Amino acid sequence: MPEELTDALERIFAADSSIYQGRGFQRRVGFGDRPALVHIDLANAWTRPGNPFTCEGMDVIIPAVQRLNEAARPKGIPIVYTTTAYEVPEGPNSDTGLWHLKIPVEVLKVGTEAVEIDARIAPLPDEQVIVKKRASAFHGTYLSSFLRAHAVDTVIVTGVTMAGCVRHTVEDAIAEGFRPIVVRECVGDRVPGVVEWNLFDIDAKFGDVEPLDRVLEYLDGVEAWHEAGAVGAEGS
Amino acid sequence: MPEELTDALERIFAADSSIYQGRGFQRRVGFGDRPALVHIDLANAWTRPGNPFTCEGMDVIIPAVQRLNEAARPKGIPIVYTTTAYEVPEGPNSDTGLWHLKIPVEVLKVGTEAVEIDARIAPLPDEQVIVKKRASAFHGTYLSSFLRAHAVDTVIVTGVTMAGCVRHTVEDAIAEGFRPIVVRECVGDRVPGVVEWNLFDIDAKFGDVEPLDRVLEYLDGVEAWHEAGAVGAEGS
Amino acid sequence: MPEELTDALERIFAADSSIYQGRGFQRRVGFGDRPALVHIDLANAWTRPGNPFTCEGMDVIIPAVQRLNEAARPKGIPIVYTTTAYEVPEGPNSDTGLWHLKIPVEVLKVGTEAVEIDARIAPLPDEQVIVKKRASAFHGTYLSSFLRAHAVDTVIVTGVTMAGCVRHTVEDAIAEGFRPIVVRECVGDRVPGVVEWNLFDIDAKFGDVEPLDRVLEYLDGVEAWHEAGAVGAEGS
Amino acid sequence: MPEELTDALERIFAADSSIYQGRGFQRRVGFGDRPALVHIDLANAWTRPGNPFTCEGMDVIIPAVQRLNEAARPKGIPIVYTTTAYEVPEGPNSDTGLWHLKIPVEVLKVGTEAVEIDARIAPLPDEQVIVKKRASAFHGTYLSSFLRAHAVDTVIVTGVTMAGCVRHTVEDAIAEGFRPIVVRECVGDRVPGVVEWNLFDIDAKFGDVEPLDRVLEYLDGVEAWHEAGAVGAEGS
Repeated sequence: MPEELTDALERIFAADSSIYQGRGFQRRVGFGDRPALVHIDLANAWTRPGNPFTCEGMDVIIPAVQRLNEAARPKGIPIVYTTTAYEVPEGPNSDTGLWHLKIPVEVLKVGTEAVEIDARIAPLPDEQVIVKKRASAFHGTYLSSFLRAHAVDTVIVTGVTMAGCVRHTVEDAIAEGFRPIVVRECVGDRVPGVVEWNLFDIDAKFGDVEPLDRVLEYLDGVEAWHEAGAVGAEGS
Repeated sequence: MPEELTDALERIFAADSSIYQGRGFQRRVGFGDRPALVHIDLANAWTRPGNPFTCEGMDVIIPAVQRLNEAARPKGIPIVYTTTAYEVPEGPNSDTGLWHLKIPVEVLKVGTEAVEIDARIAPLPDEQVIVKKRASAFHGTYLSSFLRAHAVDTVIVTGVTMAGCVRHTVEDAIAEGFRPIVVRECVGDRVPGVVEWNLFDIDAKFGDVEPLDRVLEYLDGVEAWHEAGAVGAEGS
Repeated sequence: MPEELTDALERIFAADSSIYQGRGFQRRVGFGDRPALVHIDLANAWTRPGNPFTCEGMDVIIPAVQRLNEAARPKGIPIVYTTTAYEVPEGPNSDTGLWHLKIPVEVLKVGTEAVEIDARIAPLPDEQVIVKKRASAFHGTYLSSFLRAHAVDTVIVTGVTMAGCVRHTVEDAIAEGFRPIVVRECVGDRVPGVVEWNLFDIDAKFGDVEPLDRVLEYLDGVEAWHEAGAVGAEGS
Repeated sequence: MPEELTDALERIFAADSSIYQGRGFQRRVGFGDRPALVHIDLANAWTRPGNPFTCEGMDVIIPAVQRLNEAARPKGIPIVYTTTAYEVPEGPNSDTGLWHLKIPVEVLKVGTEAVEIDARIAPLPDEQVIVKKRASAFHGTYLSSFLRAHAVDTVIVTGVTMAGCVRHTVEDAIAEGFRPIVVRECVGDRVPGVVEWNLFDIDAKFGDVEPLDRVLEYLDGVEAWHEAGAVGAEGS
C-alpha cells in the first residue's frame, strides 16, 4: 500500500481513537490464567501461492506462529488449528450453506492438500484440527465446549484472513466469554488495508491486539498445565 | 423386557396421557413441506455386536432406514448421517469434553471402522456425514445452518440411542425451529424400557412419533427438490 | 403412582444398570471447583395450582431450593433462575417458534404473574433471571457465556419439568463443558413416572443425580468467590 | 471526515475490489423470498445525544428505517428490533460477560429509557424486541430459531454500530443460512471511516450492501405473508 494511503489510515485511526478513549472504549481485556492458541486457516490454500484464497505475509506469519507453538507446547497449552473445507463443495446438497453465493468456497474440498494445515506449522497428533464451514472458528463447531472443558479463559488468535475468519472468531470469542488476544505479527490477509482497519476495530471493541514479544513473554509466565487434566478429568 | 413390565409402562403412559391431554399437551407438530432425513449414529460401534455402544434391534432398524433412503433419494431430499468420534479420545487435549467422565466415549476414534456409517445404509458421495462430539446432532455442528440454507422445515429422525443422542437431537430440532418426526421402527437403544419412555416424553412435548408407513406415505407426497438449488443458489 | 408401578420401574432400572455398568456407563462426572445454581422454571405457572403447567411436589422442592440458596449466597456462588415466557404468545409473529404446536405455551406471557419466579424463592436484585423460549436454559440464551465469563465449571440444577426443561438443560450443560449435578429433592414434574425415568437416563449418561445433603455438604466446602471478580474483571 | 481521507479510502477500496473480483469474491448473495427486517440497537443510547454510545447520522437513518417499516408492515413481514441491556451491569454477578473489560456497557441497564427503542421507530405490540448481551443479534438469543420457525430466508439489516453489532450480526446471519442485505442509508457509527470499511468488507464476503430504494422496490414485490402462519402453524 502506498505510504500516502497508510498515512491516511493512520490519521483516521488517530482521530477515532481520540473519540473512543473519550467515551470509555479501547479498554484492555487483558490476559487470563489459562490460554489456548487458536490458529485460523493456516492451511495451504491460504499460506501457499496459486489459490483464490492465497494470503500475503507468510514469511512473517509462519515463523511467528512457530515461536508461539514452541512456547506453548512444553507447558501443555492447548493448540487448536482450523481449516475451512467442505464435503460437498457444490450442488444441491452442499455444506457451503449460502457462503458460495459470496466467495469462492467451492475450491475448498475436504481431503485435498489445499485444506491441510501448512506443513511448516504441522499439528502434533494430539492437537485439534477443526474443520469449520463458516468464518468463525466458533460457529457450528465444538470449539467453545472444548475450551470450556479445559478451563481455558484466554484465546491467543493468529491466522487469516483478518477481514474474514479472524475477525469473526475474535468477535465470537469475547461473546462466548473468552479473552481474545490477537498477535500483531501473526495475522494477514490478501488485499491492502484490511489488516489495519480490522485490527483497529477489534482493539477498540472486541479484543486486545498485542505484539508477538508481549505474548511470548506472557506464555513464558503461564503456569504449566501438567495438572490441567484435573479439569477435564476426575471431579472431587 | 418381561410382559408384566411392558404392561406396567403402558399403564403409566395411559395415566400420563390422560393428564397431558387434559392440559393441552401431546399436540401434533405435523409434517412440513421440505423434509430432511437425519440418521443418528448408525455407525458400526452402534449397529454391530461387540462394542460398548452396541444397540439392539438392527434387524428392524436397518431395513426401515433403507426404505426411507429409497423414498428420499429420487426426490432430492437431503440425507444427513451423524457419527460420534474424537480426534483425541483421551488425555489432556481430548475433544471428548467432559463426556468421558460419564460414558465410554474413549473407544470412538476418528478414522476407525467403528465410527464409520454401517455399510448396509452407506451414504452416497453427496450426502453429509457429520462427525459430532456431543449427544445432539445440532450441538457444536453445522447441522442447523445446513438445513436452513436448504430451506428444510421438517427433520425425519432415526437411529440410536433413543435415551441419548436421538432424544437430545429431537429436543434441539424443535428448539431450532424444525418439525421433528421420529420414525417408530427406526429408533433403538441398548437397555430395556428406554425406547418406550423416551418416545413417550418426546411425543408429549417435542416431536411427533410416527410409524414408518405414515412417513413413507408422506415422503411419497412431497414435491421433488429438483429446484431446491434455487434456495441455496441464485437470489433474485 | 401405585406401588406396583414403582416397583416395575425399579426392576427395569436395576436390569438396565447392570448392562450400563458392564459397559462402562454410569460413571461419575463429579463436582468441580466453581459451581453455579441453575433453577429451571420455578415460576408461578409451574409452582402454583391452576395452570396447565402446574407441577407436583412443591412442598419438598421449594424448601430444598431455599436451602441451596442459603448455602450459596454467603459464598458469592452465582444463582441463575429461568422462566419461559413470550412477548407474542400467539399469531404469525410469535416468539414461541414451533413449540405451540406441541404444548400450551400460549399461556406464558411476558410480564404476567404466571411467569414470575415464585416469591418463596425470590431472586435477589443481583441474581440473573433468564427468560428463555425453549426447553433448555442454554438454548437461545446467554447462559453458557455468562457461566464461562464467571469461570463456572459445575452447574447445580433444580426445578421443573424433569421430562422437559430440566432434562434438556442437563444434556446441554455437559455438552457445553459444565459438570451437571441434579439435586434429587429439587426436581419435579406433573405426570407420574417421568421424574424417575428421566433421572435414570441422566445419571446413566449426562450428569450426576445427588441427594440434597450431599450437595449442601459440597457447597459448604466450596471456596467463597470473594475474588471471583478477578475472572470477569481485570486481566494481568 | 476530510475529503482527502475519503479519497484515500476510495482508492484502497478500488484496488482491493480489483483483487477480490479477479479471485471470485464480491459475489451477490441476492434477495430471497421471505425477508425479515432486523433493526440493530436503534435505542436511545445510540440514537440520541449524550450517551457514550451515541451515534451519528440519525437524521438519515431514522426516516429510512421508517420507510422500511411502512413497506414491511402491510405485508406481514416480521420486524425484529434489538437493544443491548444488562440486568446486572456491574459486579461479580454481571451479565456483561467480559465485554465491560473492553467497552462501557455498564451504562446499559435493563428498564432504563436509554435502552428503549427510539420512539420515532417504535415497535408495534406484536413485533419482537430482543434484548441481547453481545454484539451479534444472533449470539445468545432466539433470533435464528424465531426466523427459522417463520421460514425467513433473507434478513434486511439496519442500525448501529457498523463496526460492532451490525457487522457481527451480518457475519452470523450468513453463517446461519440467511441472506444478509445491509441497507446503505440505514447504518451508522460514532467514529469516522468505520462505516465505509466495514461495508466494504461485508460486501466482499458476507452480505450485499444495497441502497434503500433497491430494498424498498424488493419489499414492494414480495408476496404478502397472510398465509405465513401456515409455517409456524398447522402441519399437514
